[in-house]
Amino acid sequence: MDKNNFFWQIQNGALPPPPAAATLGIRFTAIDGAAGTIEVEFQARPEFTNPAGNIQGGFLAAMLDDCMGPALAATLAAGEFAPTLNLNVAYQRAARVGLIQGKARIVKRGKDICFLAGELYQDDCLIATATATAMVRSLATGV
Amino acid sequence: MDKNNFFWQIQNGALPPPPAAATLGIRFTAIDGAAGTIEVEFQARPEFTNPAGNIQGGFLAAMLDDCMGPALAATLAAGEFAPTLNLNVAYQRAARVGLIQGKARIVKRGKDICFLAGELYQDDCLIATATATAMVRSLATGV
Repeated sequence: MDKNNFFWQIQNGALPPPPAAATLGIRFTAIDGAAGTIEVEFQARPEFTNPAGNIQGGFLAAMLDDCMGPALAATLAAGEFAPTLNLNVAYQRAARVGLIQGKARIVKRGKDICFLAGELYQDDCLIATATATAMVRSLATGV
Repeated sequence: MDKNNFFWQIQNGALPPPPAAATLGIRFTAIDGAAGTIEVEFQARPEFTNPAGNIQGGFLAAMLDDCMGPALAATLAAGEFAPTLNLNVAYQRAARVGLIQGKARIVKRGKDICFLAGELYQDDCLIATATATAMVRSLATGV
């Protein structure tokens, strides 16, 4: 964990929040960089709804990615970045416009390959779960 | 295939496009309801970018969901809807702000469980692939 990495610079206000996170209305409610866990809150907007009026599953996937990603990002060294290689989402319940809580954790931190897991909740009900594989890269070498 | 279902009513302008699709800047370029294939174009906006300036993987997942979903939706009866149960995405290449092409198809259409596949391209390069499982339900019974 390096407080000079981009994640902590965003948290400290030295860098602006990434646009994707702002679009999803993210708010960090708990960050434990040492444990590799994170809790966040998203604002599911009317702009994310499908023809049935529920939140489109893909936007829930975006929230899960934006929950698992930061769980790992909080632990990176300065100059490192961790693009997602695989994202697997299971949908348990339809989600509505409003607040959605997300929890994510590092399942296994390898030298460069990392396994992540996360869940979304609305009104204390589980709505979606996910796993992801990410690869730690240096920003200098690109993704 | 029923031209009175919600998908074709949206295509015909009788119903408004779903907000999620509008947010992703979707445009249908080819629809073959009989074959269960579809081609679309998305507008990847600056609001979808991650700290590296690339399109956040979750928003690519949303595009893939919004490409595979319509491939199935075009074949549904009026009053049917097909929520996604599982979505699995693999990321092959970073995507930038701009146009993204999507292709999707029905791999297997069961009585209610359907298997779908899709890909995204940017500048003729493959950027992400996905499979999904969806379940056909009646809107009257909810999701």
